[in-house]
Formats: sequence, structure tokens, C-alpha cells
Amino acid sequence: MAFYLMQHDKTAAQDIAEALITALRRVRHCERCNNFSEQPVCELCLSANRNDTVVCVVEMPSDVQSIEQTQSFKGRYFVLLGRLSPLDGVGPKEIGLDRLIARASDGIVKEVIVATNFTNEGEATAHYIGEKLVPLGLKVTRLSRGVPAGGEIEYVDIGTLAQSIIERKTVD
Amino acid sequence: MAFYLMQHDKTAAQDIAEALITALRRVRHCERCNNFSEQPVCELCLSANRNDTVVCVVEMPSDVQSIEQTQSFKGRYFVLLGRLSPLDGVGPKEIGLDRLIARASDGIVKEVIVATNFTNEGEATAHYIGEKLVPLGLKVTRLSRGVPAGGEIEYVDIGTLAQSIIERKTVD
Repeated sequence: MAFYLMQHDKTAAQDIAEALITALRRVRHCERCNNFSEQPVCELCLSANRNDTVVCVVEMPSDVQSIEQTQSFKGRYFVLLGRLSPLDGVGPKEIGLDRLIARASDGIVKEVIVATNFTNEGEATAHYIGEKLVPLGLKVTRLSRGVPAGGEIEYVDIGTLAQSIIERKTVD
Repeated sequence: MAFYLMQHDKTAAQDIAEALITALRRVRHCERCNNFSEQPVCELCLSANRNDTVVCVVEMPSDVQSIEQTQSFKGRYFVLLGRLSPLDGVGPKEIGLDRLIARASDGIVKEVIVATNFTNEGEATAHYIGEKLVPLGLKVTRLSRGVPAGGEIEYVDIGTLAQSIIERKTVD
């Protein structure tokens, strides 16, 4: 991309450079949810049209964007900005779990959706969060695992298929 | 593959041809579950180590093989050898739904896992089977849908992510 811009489109290169510098100067983390924001508190936290009783916990701001694109979630977010990773020295403190627990115990939040990745570290993080929040009387949920949309049994990997059999759903 | 065999390995070509002819002559459909079998009733139906109370309905014999590889299911199978497809003239009779209903109503079967594909036709077939079996007092289940094993939120397609939010599971 850099080579193309230098050769064919110097104006665009200049524009991109300036946009990046502006972003670096203006964008910070939302004080409430850690998402990227140009204001102290981000638009998703300020919006009056969202459900305060459900908080979705994700690892990264890019995950917020992915979930927003689905238009299937209208609650609030909390971005960990990482995941538990003892080998890298990332413990509960580094990913702000104290703040998440304080927020979830505010009396308004009823459900916490733990939408960390289904990698080993993401699963461990989800397990840890569950262990902290379930005893507080909160409903803790995890995204469903199984066959992806449009999937055919023959082409799904064995691990996913095994999971989808074990977590099968009753049809009403 | 054909070109390679003709050029480099005529013996293997002869062996494959003979194996195919033998398979064509010997392999038929199991009388009980429609799976491929060299006997009138296949090994999976005859095995004494499987659970008679659960039947897994799949579209094709290759799906039986996929599910067997997971080692997560120890019940019986029923292979539809197709899926409902009105435009192609495939209705309930063509995929042997009478036989499935008769089998599921034998008093031994308690649960039917509908493991048809998550394509439009597979979903329609699953819906139809559910409508026939639920009123008979049977437990009808469907494989879970959601994020595949090891999946990361950022890289999952929007449809799958939406599904996994809607069908989220409570953590105990």
C-alpha cells in the first residue's frame, strides 16, 4: 500500500498521514468502557437508546465494532483491552477486572455477556470472569458455540461438530 | 488423478477400478438407517454398544462418517439420503420421512437429533421433521449454532456472530 501511494497518489498519502496524526492526538479510551473515543465517554456509553441492564465484555475495541455490525445487541460494552495471559504477566489487574466487577455490581446490570475469544486465553478469561460474577447473583452468559451460519455437517471441523452435538438445543 | 494414474501407476489404476466394481456390487443401503452397508443391516445399527433411545437424522452417509469421527455420539442414525426440495420434486415421501416417523414412534426412541445441514433446504427439512415429531411427545434437538471451536470474534462472519449472541448460553 505504501509503495502504491508513493508512486501513484501522493495526495492520498498526505491525507492518510494527517488523519493518523489527528487520530493519535484525539482518540483515547472511554473512561467507562475502554472503547476508543474522541470524548472522555464514548457514544455507545452515552446513548440513551441502549439497555443498561446488559453488559457485553470483549477483548478489543475491534470486537465492539464486529458485534455492533450484527445489530443483535443493544446493551453496553466493557473492553478488557487484553485477556488473561499469566506467561506474559497479564493478570486480572492488567485487564481491569476490578473495574468490571465494580460496574457489574452497580445494581443496574443484570446480565454480563462474556464475548471473549474462543482461544485458550479467551476461554480462561471467560472462566475467571464467570467465577467472580456468578456468586454476585448476576446472570453470566457466553456466546454460543457450534456450526457457523450456512454450515454443512460434512465440511465442519471435528472439534466444532463435537461441540455442536454436546451443546445441542431442544426444538419447541 | 486419472492422468497421473494412466501415466505413472497402471497397477493402482487397475486396483482402484476393481475396488470400485466390488463396492458397486456389494455396497447397498442399510434396511434400517439407509447408511451404506455390505450387509442388509449396517454395523452401526447392529452394534450392541450404542444407545437405542437417541436417533441422529442426517442428510447423507458422509455426514454419518463426520459425526462418528467426533466420538461424541453413541446413539443410532437415520440417513434421509437427501433433503426437502420442492423445486426439485423432493417431498417428504422421497426422503423416507414415513419410515423415520415410524421408527421414532417405536416407544424406544426418546430423542431425535436433527443434524441436517444449516443451508436453507436443510433448515426447512429440520423444521418439517420437528413439526411431525414434537407432537408425538419426542424430544427433538438441533445441533447448536455459533462461533466455531477456536474462533475469534473479530474474524467470525456477521450472521454467525448474530446467531451466537441470540443463542447465548448461561454460565453456571
